[in-house]
Amino acid sequence: MPEKRYLMTPGPTPVPPEVLAALAEPVVHHRGRDFREIYERCLARLREVYRTEHDVLLYTSSGTGAFESAVANLTSPGDRVLVVSAGSFGERWAAMTRAYGADVVHLRLDWGETPEPDDLRPALAAGGAGVVYLVHSETSTGVVADVQALAAVAKEAGALVVVDAVSSLGAVPLETDAWGIDVVVSGSQKALMCPPGLAFVSVSPAALEAAARSTSPRFVLDWERTRAAQAKLDAPFTPAVSLVRALDVALGLLLDEGLEAAFARHARLGRACREGAKAMGLELFSPDEERSAVVTALRAPDGVDATRVVAELRERFGITLANGQGDLKGKIIRIGHIGWFDVFDITTALAALELSLGDAGAEIERGVAVSRALEAYAERAHV
Amino acid sequence: MPEKRYLMTPGPTPVPPEVLAALAEPVVHHRGRDFREIYERCLARLREVYRTEHDVLLYTSSGTGAFESAVANLTSPGDRVLVVSAGSFGERWAAMTRAYGADVVHLRLDWGETPEPDDLRPALAAGGAGVVYLVHSETSTGVVADVQALAAVAKEAGALVVVDAVSSLGAVPLETDAWGIDVVVSGSQKALMCPPGLAFVSVSPAALEAAARSTSPRFVLDWERTRAAQAKLDAPFTPAVSLVRALDVALGLLLDEGLEAAFARHARLGRACREGAKAMGLELFSPDEERSAVVTALRAPDGVDATRVVAELRERFGITLANGQGDLKGKIIRIGHIGWFDVFDITTALAALELSLGDAGAEIERGVAVSRALEAYAERAHV
Repeated sequence: MPEKRYLMTPGPTPVPPEVLAALAEPVVHHRGRDFREIYERCLARLREVYRTEHDVLLYTSSGTGAFESAVANLTSPGDRVLVVSAGSFGERWAAMTRAYGADVVHLRLDWGETPEPDDLRPALAAGGAGVVYLVHSETSTGVVADVQALAAVAKEAGALVVVDAVSSLGAVPLETDAWGIDVVVSGSQKALMCPPGLAFVSVSPAALEAAARSTSPRFVLDWERTRAAQAKLDAPFTPAVSLVRALDVALGLLLDEGLEAAFARHARLGRACREGAKAMGLELFSPDEERSAVVTALRAPDGVDATRVVAELRERFGITLANGQGDLKGKIIRIGHIGWFDVFDITTALAALELSLGDAGAEIERGVAVSRALEAYAERAHV
Repeated sequence: MPEKRYLMTPGPTPVPPEVLAALAEPVVHHRGRDFREIYERCLARLREVYRTEHDVLLYTSSGTGAFESAVANLTSPGDRVLVVSAGSFGERWAAMTRAYGADVVHLRLDWGETPEPDDLRPALAAGGAGVVYLVHSETSTGVVADVQALAAVAKEAGALVVVDAVSSLGAVPLETDAWGIDVVVSGSQKALMCPPGLAFVSVSPAALEAAARSTSPRFVLDWERTRAAQAKLDAPFTPAVSLVRALDVALGLLLDEGLEAAFARHARLGRACREGAKAMGLELFSPDEERSAVVTALRAPDGVDATRVVAELRERFGITLANGQGDLKGKIIRIGHIGWFDVFDITTALAALELSLGDAGAEIERGVAVSRALEAYAERAHV
């Protein structure tokens, strides 16, 4: 029998068959009417998912390209910026702003901590930070920050707010305009149920004004060049037309479900995963809270190497979970449940984990995780 | 009947069904073994197509991103560079090197001219240009330059040589190592028979050394970051895994045909297209020579607007040809025959053009273009 495969990492995520079928459509020219129709609808759907009235710029790039655009267009050498990090992706903001010569104030929390408004206030009180770089869902730890509250504090201090929402957009609530977030960066390969290769960045009028003043060199990632082209339903450079076609279908599926329904589903999936894991005696690394609905990070039981467990799950069962990154490698196991997931994906991950950890000699409770996960999922349906 | 569609622009180009089918395969994780196998083979095949022993770096980007990497990694503000242009893509080198603050010596030929070694010598004699930026196939005009000869002159002067081979790689002969070209930039959506979204750049050891000295800011496009990751069969950022899988299949098809056979086929297609067009009385804009085998550019007959012809071909027959760019808009019609093309694509383009131009009242010879094209194609088979 051909091996069944289960992709359960925090990205790339599984892609529905309708979206895969769209990928296999013949290639069309990016300036022809065949594409313009798809492109226009796709850009409108992106604005709807972003909950913004402003432009969402579309790049053919990994999500990191959209990150970089938010540095190249907003910071000139010597500009003071504030970076808040508590994991791998927050630290990427720091590395990138430094690469562009910014004067970086780095509020560096330990991996796994949740940044709070009170952490930000003293750093902002020092003054001078024109841009604050935040992470919404820190994929390396499973923490989802309260960016609404963090953004409010940064706006009070007069800074522009940039948010990494690569793994959160479409999975947990994010109100770009209502929360006053100037720039939201995201990508195709997480909750938007598409393959990797497209990245997005929403830009407020204030962000575009600031970009006009930035002296950092950029060409492909220049916001104004892309904004001006998109205003005419054009693209400055040949976009990945097949991926845009797939994204259009995927966004249609997401909006058919409804954003609120998708947020509720992710919250239930996260809760089911946590409850199931706790029932078998595993300790959570990511927070046990409603918002943490994107990635569940579990501590490997004493004496068990997460690296081996992850490798074994792939070899024995075709299941791909994620190891920890950086210092957490070998210490945590991350289960992604972003995008095209239902509760049976959660029970599959837990059942396989139970089997693998049990065989590795870990002291876990057998036979309870799956039913507890199903129960927790059902409970939330009535809340 | 569903409309039949014919994509005959100089890119994106048609994609074979095997490649489309690969796109629709389920998404795999970019750090798992499922992907590593594809990635390793794909990188090896790229080196074979490039005819280089050095690294070919793979980016998720339009071709222009690879262009930009060759500027950001090689030029610091104030560095003198020489740009040779004779069309839209050469001028892009000039715009981009200026955006990075280079001291640009711009050898600007008219659109449609063919740059010759003698054009370069005086510009190089002035001295100081550390990098020379060239275009192999100028897609906007159909001219294919003799980059072997141009590169030799630039190397003599001690400069690094960078070549835009976006529309030429895999279609006309290009010997990266044998011709001493330091950097060759290309993309997935032309002769490599893939959708747009991947871009490549080969880097000689001298180019990597120069990159280590460049002070221009860059993160995603930093060569060393990508080179170091690829050396471990890793990617620094999530690549477009579906496009890489498709590229692997497409490169396999190209190498199964054989590079020399593909070059001969493109030369024959170009000749067939030119002979057919001349037979109906059209005037060539692109040169009537063997090397011009990528795009055939035709002057619109007196009193005929190329913009209208191109629009009409799309509306009436589902055939997409390309208009001129810039000042040539409305004046020339470009037929791309790059990648997955055979002689019947040429006869289709010519037959439709004959019909459309005839109906527009142009004075053309009817009923001869197709048979002359077939004849010219057959003649070359025996050369």
